[in-house]
Amino acid sequence: MAKIPPLSGFPELLPQQRIVEQHILDTVRRLFELHGFSSLETRAVEPLDQLLRKGEMDKEVYLLRRLHAVDDEEGAAADQLGLHFDLTVPLARYVLQNAGHLDFPYRRYQIQKVWRGERPQEGRYREFTQADIDIIGRDTLAFHHEVEVAVVMAEVFAALPIPPAVIKVNNRKLAEGFFRGAGATDPDAALRAIDNLDKIGPDRVAALLVEDAGLDAAGARLCLELATITGSDATLSDRVQALGVEHPLLTEGLAELVAVVAAVNARRPQAVLADLKIARGLDYYTGTVFETELVGYESLGSICSGGRYDALASDGKVTFPGVGISLGVSRLLVPLLAGGRLTASRSVPSCVLVAVSDEGERAASEQVADALRARGISTEVAPSAAKFGKQIRHADRRGIPYVWFAASEGSDHSVKDIRSGDQVPADPYGWNPPAADLHPTVTMEPRPPATETTSEEPPQ
Amino acid sequence: MAKIPPLSGFPELLPQQRIVEQHILDTVRRLFELHGFSSLETRAVEPLDQLLRKGEMDKEVYLLRRLHAVDDEEGAAADQLGLHFDLTVPLARYVLQNAGHLDFPYRRYQIQKVWRGERPQEGRYREFTQADIDIIGRDTLAFHHEVEVAVVMAEVFAALPIPPAVIKVNNRKLAEGFFRGAGATDPDAALRAIDNLDKIGPDRVAALLVEDAGLDAAGARLCLELATITGSDATLSDRVQALGVEHPLLTEGLAELVAVVAAVNARRPQAVLADLKIARGLDYYTGTVFETELVGYESLGSICSGGRYDALASDGKVTFPGVGISLGVSRLLVPLLAGGRLTASRSVPSCVLVAVSDEGERAASEQVADALRARGISTEVAPSAAKFGKQIRHADRRGIPYVWFAASEGSDHSVKDIRSGDQVPADPYGWNPPAADLHPTVTMEPRPPATETTSEEPPQ
Repeated sequence: MAKIPPLSGFPELLPQQRIVEQHILDTVRRLFELHGFSSLETRAVEPLDQLLRKGEMDKEVYLLRRLHAVDDEEGAAADQLGLHFDLTVPLARYVLQNAGHLDFPYRRYQIQKVWRGERPQEGRYREFTQADIDIIGRDTLAFHHEVEVAVVMAEVFAALPIPPAVIKVNNRKLAEGFFRGAGATDPDAALRAIDNLDKIGPDRVAALLVEDAGLDAAGARLCLELATITGSDATLSDRVQALGVEHPLLTEGLAELVAVVAAVNARRPQAVLADLKIARGLDYYTGTVFETELVGYESLGSICSGGRYDALASDGKVTFPGVGISLGVSRLLVPLLAGGRLTASRSVPSCVLVAVSDEGERAASEQVADALRARGISTEVAPSAAKFGKQIRHADRRGIPYVWFAASEGSDHSVKDIRSGDQVPADPYGWNPPAADLHPTVTMEPRPPATETTSEEPPQ
Repeated sequence: MAKIPPLSGFPELLPQQRIVEQHILDTVRRLFELHGFSSLETRAVEPLDQLLRKGEMDKEVYLLRRLHAVDDEEGAAADQLGLHFDLTVPLARYVLQNAGHLDFPYRRYQIQKVWRGERPQEGRYREFTQADIDIIGRDTLAFHHEVEVAVVMAEVFAALPIPPAVIKVNNRKLAEGFFRGAGATDPDAALRAIDNLDKIGPDRVAALLVEDAGLDAAGARLCLELATITGSDATLSDRVQALGVEHPLLTEGLAELVAVVAAVNARRPQAVLADLKIARGLDYYTGTVFETELVGYESLGSICSGGRYDALASDGKVTFPGVGISLGVSRLLVPLLAGGRLTASRSVPSCVLVAVSDEGERAASEQVADALRARGISTEVAPSAAKFGKQIRHADRRGIPYVWFAASEGSDHSVKDIRSGDQVPADPYGWNPPAADLHPTVTMEPRPPATETTSEEPPQ
C-alpha cells in the first residue's frame, strides 16, 4: 500500500505532542472553571440558515450530505446541515433554544473543534480547536464582565508554557464616535480602511478614508493619528482628547477603554494594552474588542479575540447581550509544536513500567501495577518477558522514568530510576515517585532549537 | 422568532447534565491513563475510500462539501471527505501513516465524537461520543492484551456511577471451529443465523442453519445448544466439550475463552461472563469478542463492544494486529440523564459566590475571589450589588453551596453555608470548604424517580 499522505489543513499530533496539547487544554479548563464558567458542548452541526444568519455568505462552511440520502430528502437549502465554523453561532442558538432552562448571567466555556473550508496556510487550518468563554445576560449585562473575560484570559496566558502574549484592546464606540466626530459619513467604511493600515500603508488608507468614508483630508489625518495611539498609562485619555475630535459616542467609548485597561491591569499587571489601530471585529462587536499577539509569532495573527455584543441573540421579545473571548488553541499550539519549542517529558502517561521476569509470573507484575495505580500512579506492565535490558529500553523509548522489578524468590521488590540508574528496594503498597515524575511535564524551550528534525513536526 | 426545535439524533445537554458527562469522561480518561494508555485525537474526517475500505457501503456516512466548492474541485468520489463513523477506521489509518513515529505495542485511548447518518432511535444517535482503548502490535500481539482491555473496562464500570454492567465474552475461533466441526459449509452464514436468535427464535434459526450454512438437522441442533451456554465457572469447558463437536479451531478458541474469563475474573471478580450466543462482531474480529449489557437497560443494546483483530491494518509488508474495546458514552449516558437517574449537585463548577455589597466595593470581592481561586476553590463574584437575599438566591439556583461576605467597616470576612444557614468568620487566605463541596458531585438515584419532569430531559 502506498504511503498515506497527510490531509492539508487537518493537523494531527504524535503521542508526545498530544500530551502537550492535553496539558494546555487541561490548564485552560482548570482556569475557566476556577472562575465559575460551566462547560458547554454543542453539536458539531447547525442548520445552514443559522450558520449564515448574519449574512456571512463568504464563510467557507462545510455542508453535510448523507451518503445514502434519498433524492429531495435533504430538503431546502435552509434545512441543510453544516459544520459550525466558530463557537459563537452555536452558543447564540443554544441560548435561544434553552433560555428557559438557563440562569442568567449565563457563564459558559466551550472547548471544541470547529471547521472552515478555507485554503490552509500558516496559522489557518480546516479543523482546529477553540476555547471560548462568554458571559450572556438577559436584557442587560454589566460592564464589569468586559473586564472579567480579559482577566481570565490573562491568567490563562500566564499559566501556559508559551511566549508572552499581550491582549490589545479597542472600543467600537470610541472608533465610531471619533470617525463621526471627524466628519465621516460612513464610519464602517472608515473601520475597513483602518483595518488595512498594516497592509497598504497610511497614504492609501488616507485616500480610502476620503473616498469611501466621506472624510476630508484633515479628518483622514486625524483618524490616522488616532490609529497610532497605543499604551496603558494615564496619558491615554489625554492623547485621544488632544486630537480635538468630539462626539458623545467617543466620550463613552474612551471612558470604557480607559476603565477596561485600568481594571484589568490593576488585577493582572501589564496584561492588556490599548491599541487604537485595531479595527477587525469592530463591525461585529458593539463595545470593547480584544485581539492578542504572541510575542515572536506575530505573523500568526491574533491568537485570542473577542469583545462585547449588545445582541448576541434575540427571540424578538428578549435580547441577550454578551461578552466573550476566544482562544485559538490550534493556531497557538501547532506552530510551537512544529518548531520544537514545546515538548513533553514522555510520550505516554505511564510513570512506571513493571518488568515481567517470566510469562508465568505476569500475574505478580500485574498485582504490583494494580497496587501502584490504586495510589494514582500511572503504570503499565511490560508486554513480554524479554531480557530486562530490552524491557528497560521499552521504558526508555517512551520516557517512562521508572522500571519496577517484582519480588521473586531470593529478591525483594525494587524500583529503578532509569535516568540515574539508581535501583532501590520498594514496597508496591507504599512507594511514591517524586511529585515531578508523577505526570508528564511540559517544557517550553527558551528559543527555537538550532536544528528541527522531521519527527518533531506534527504529522498533519 | 419561532422557538428553535431540537435536531433529532444530536443530543445536547443542559449545564447540570454536562457536569455529569464531564465526571464520566474524566473518570474514563483517568483510568485509561492509569493503565498507561496515551491519548489520540484524529481529525473528524477521513477520505471516503478509507471509510468504505472494508466494503461497508451500508454505513450511513456523512459526506462533506464546501459551500463555495468550485465545480470539479472536490475531485473523484474516492477523494471525497466524510465524517468518521467510529474510532477504529481513523486509528488504522493513523497507525499506517505514523508507524515510523510510534512505539509498539502502541497503547492508545481516544475519546471523540463520531457521526452516523442513521435514523435516530433509542440508544442510536447521529452524533455521539465514544471512548475507545486499543493495543496495536507490529507483526505480533500477545494474547494477554485481550485480558487487559477487559480488565480496564471492568474498572471503568466499577468506578462510574451507573447500574451494574456485565461484559460478555465469546470467541470467533470457538464459534467458527464449532460450526465447522458440526458440519457447516458456510460458518459465516451460521454466525448470521445465530445473531438473529433473540429476534426470530430457535426454530427459524435452525432452518437458516440448514438452508444457509449447510448443516444437517443434528448439526443445527448442536449449534443452538452451543448458543445456550453461558457462565464463568470451571464447568464452561466441559459443557462445550460435552456437545461432542471437534475441530482444531474450536479447541484453540475454547482455550482462549476459558483463559480470558478466568484471568479477567481473577483480577476483577465477576466482571466477565462467557456467552456463546454472541455472534455480532464475530465476522469482524478474529479471536475474543466483547459485548456489554447495562442491567435494567438491556434494550439499549451493547454499551461497550470490542475484540481482537489479527489485521487492524497492513501496509502490504507489515501487519498490525490489535485488540480494542469501545465504550458508547452517549448511549450509556443520555438515557440515564433523561430518566433523571444521574444528577450533579450543582449546575456550575463554582463552590463559592462572593457577594458584592456595593458596586464601589467590587474590587474587594474580586480580591477575595482571587485568594480563594489561588487555593483551587472555584469562585465567582456576584454579577450585581443586589440585596444580599437576591445574591443568595443567585447562588441557590445554581447549587453553589457557599456565599462569602467580604470584610467591610465594622465586620470581618464571613462565609455562609446556604444549605444550613450557618455563617462563620473566615479568612480568604486560609479558609477551605469540606472536600466533598470543592467540586460538584454526581449521584445515581437507586431507581428511576417516580415522576420525570420535562426539565430533566436532555434538550436534544
